Amino acid sequence: MRQLEDFYIAQLQDKHPADIADILQRLPVDEAYPILSQLSHSKAAFTLAEMEKDRLVEFLEILEPTFLASVLQEIPPNEAADLIGELPTSKWRPVLKSLAPEKAAPIRDLLKYPEDSAGGIMTDRFISLNENETVLQSQKRLRGRVELKSEDVSYLYVTNNALNLVGVVSFRDLLFSPPQKSIREIMNPNIKFVRVFDDQEEIARHFQHYHYLGLPVLDRKNQLVGVVKASEVLRVAQEEATEDMQLMVGLSGEERALTPWTKSIRRRLPWLFINLITAFMAAAVIGIFENTIAQWTALAVFLPIIAGQGGNAGMQTLTIVIRDMALGEINPGDGRKALLKELLLSIANGIAIGIVVGIIGYLWKDSFHLGIVAGAAMLLNMVAASLSGVLIPLGLKFFKVDPAMASSIFLTTVTDVAGFFFFLGLGTLALKFFVL
Amino acid sequence: MRQLEDFYIAQLQDKHPADIADILQRLPVDEAYPILSQLSHSKAAFTLAEMEKDRLVEFLEILEPTFLASVLQEIPPNEAADLIGELPTSKWRPVLKSLAPEKAAPIRDLLKYPEDSAGGIMTDRFISLNENETVLQSQKRLRGRVELKSEDVSYLYVTNNALNLVGVVSFRDLLFSPPQKSIREIMNPNIKFVRVFDDQEEIARHFQHYHYLGLPVLDRKNQLVGVVKASEVLRVAQEEATEDMQLMVGLSGEERALTPWTKSIRRRLPWLFINLITAFMAAAVIGIFENTIAQWTALAVFLPIIAGQGGNAGMQTLTIVIRDMALGEINPGDGRKALLKELLLSIANGIAIGIVVGIIGYLWKDSFHLGIVAGAAMLLNMVAASLSGVLIPLGLKFFKVDPAMASSIFLTTVTDVAGFFFFLGLGTLALKFFVL
Repeated sequence: MRQLEDFYIAQLQDKHPADIADILQRLPVDEAYPILSQLSHSKAAFTLAEMEKDRLVEFLEILEPTFLASVLQEIPPNEAADLIGELPTSKWRPVLKSLAPEKAAPIRDLLKYPEDSAGGIMTDRFISLNENETVLQSQKRLRGRVELKSEDVSYLYVTNNALNLVGVVSFRDLLFSPPQKSIREIMNPNIKFVRVFDDQEEIARHFQHYHYLGLPVLDRKNQLVGVVKASEVLRVAQEEATEDMQLMVGLSGEERALTPWTKSIRRRLPWLFINLITAFMAAAVIGIFENTIAQWTALAVFLPIIAGQGGNAGMQTLTIVIRDMALGEINPGDGRKALLKELLLSIANGIAIGIVVGIIGYLWKDSFHLGIVAGAAMLLNMVAASLSGVLIPLGLKFFKVDPAMASSIFLTTVTDVAGFFFFLGLGTLALKFFVL
Repeated sequence: MRQLEDFYIAQLQDKHPADIADILQRLPVDEAYPILSQLSHSKAAFTLAEMEKDRLVEFLEILEPTFLASVLQEIPPNEAADLIGELPTSKWRPVLKSLAPEKAAPIRDLLKYPEDSAGGIMTDRFISLNENETVLQSQKRLRGRVELKSEDVSYLYVTNNALNLVGVVSFRDLLFSPPQKSIREIMNPNIKFVRVFDDQEEIARHFQHYHYLGLPVLDRKNQLVGVVKASEVLRVAQEEATEDMQLMVGLSGEERALTPWTKSIRRRLPWLFINLITAFMAAAVIGIFENTIAQWTALAVFLPIIAGQGGNAGMQTLTIVIRDMALGEINPGDGRKALLKELLLSIANGIAIGIVVGIIGYLWKDSFHLGIVAGAAMLLNMVAASLSGVLIPLGLKFFKVDPAMASSIFLTTVTDVAGFFFFLGLGTLALKFFVL
């Protein structure tokens, strides 16, 4: 048995940390922990770095402090800072104290930046050259920096004596330029950068727009402190897209299909209660018209059609607007244009769907009045739905809330309340004036 | 006026193609076209490459063939192939014919690959070294390749005499290794790659999992034909996330907030009609129970609560499952586990929400029976909703349809039909046995 286990560990040890993380995440923590602790320290460290946040926190909570310290010793400061950042702040100090001081210092610096800022996602592994060096001097100096693996570096950044970023040089230029030229002469001074407190979502938009492979990060004194890489931005973009989708339907925090249900319930139930409140608002509208329904029960049959179609049309609009807002493809001045478009579109869609609903209403219940009432309510509700699809995310943004936040819950409230009101209101009028 | 226009063009000419594309896309094609045609050919070409697919097709349709040819002459084959690929296939031949044969040949090769394959998203600008060359020979040969801009290259790929990929060398290694060593001696033979017909979604998952900056692309003969870059994968990942979100709510093709409404209607209306069919299924269930409602109109008030809560709970599940399927984070064997989780979760949520709905039902309408019927129906519908949230995407996938495709429409059909059936069915039984 012991031998089998060793064999299994040895096999794991050879895998990519992302794959090991996948395997360990599927096990209960108490089974996974002994396996993790038998991996080499650097493998264990990179494996932790690849884990889902949820599971990572579970692991970090039960990891022995000495093991955690020796693991952190093995990985670059930015990865270590990401791991420590997941712990409650009260635990940072003991962990940092157990590290060698020269290892702890850069980690302490990185922990100052918010997780979702450029500082939080940058790597501090980059190569900078001094503008006053010659090409030959730079080449020699780089030869000594064996700790930098090739995949960490796409560009060489150039700084002046005050450590301010002044340009960029490619490996190609450094390789092929005359050895006695100064770096200043061969560098490209035209350089894009981000600030250390810039928001990661903003940075992701920047990368998507301009197709960068990496961007340098400057602090307040314009000093170069790190590099954001495209591979990291890919992770950020994916996270933000997931977050938007999940926020829209009322899910707080990232959830996965296999997140334990006892955790999921804390994320889902509060939103279901909020939805319940809004559902009762819709029910209250029906309650107002209970007498109408008692006289004309065919109306009850059409209720879900009016509300459901409105909800669906509104979700189409909402999904498009939220996506464009998230990717920064809609400017502040575009709100009115988008609203006008949705107005025209919903009138056209509403007439098409309204006519069909009206005809079916007429044929099914053999009532001309029902057809007119259902068709008209359908048109009105689809217009209300589409306009809400634009106005809800814009409104949330105005109040500095994420535009995706529970927006589908608000939307269906509008489409239910408005749909029932239009339909039952028109029905009541029809009852009154045509004495059906 | 003329001078003002020149000034405006000159200003545009200095901007990044992505920014020019943004500006031109906001203008009607007939206003944008004269501006585009006054830009330098290479600027015009890269600007076209940055445009949204929809607008690009409009431009390509009205572009004069000679202008298009001179524009394509200016950009690398892979960008040219992407542009031509947007035209209907019948127009490929005349455009290719108007190009110089040595320019047309590589474009023709690239057009063979599907748009969403590795071949479709790769760049053909990469540097390969022969394994038998010495470091010095390679350095000399590279010096001559001035056409390659630094940002196009992260790695140097190594091939044997048969042009098969055998390894990878970093610029750093090439810079610092002893000049007389062979490339074979300094290369890393352990290399990851993709196949030219691999699906872009699969490749994006690969990049996300392993954080690559670039991966070489091999054809059927194991020859190196291109490189997929992380910046391109970022675009693909974003596209796929958008597509999933939009497919879920019934939107075919990518739509933006400012897509003209006349175009949007073709994408949205068909789904609304499909939704209408499913809404009538829900209405038919109410129709069956019309007598029940006539006797007990309070039931009609609670209909949207039972259906709406079910719909919302189901959307939470659906969103999570679709996201995990899209990112490949859920394995085939996980379906049963996910189903079990949702079963437990929905029973817990259903009991919590069901009790509240039941109590409100009792208090509002002063009817103990209504409370019991509403609470029980709520619980049953939430269980049905959550299970559907797992089963609908799995079912769509089983039938080789995109799991996101209109899944929210199918889901609300289930939650409406099941919700009305449970609620009105239980209500009918209560009427019968307790003679309310």
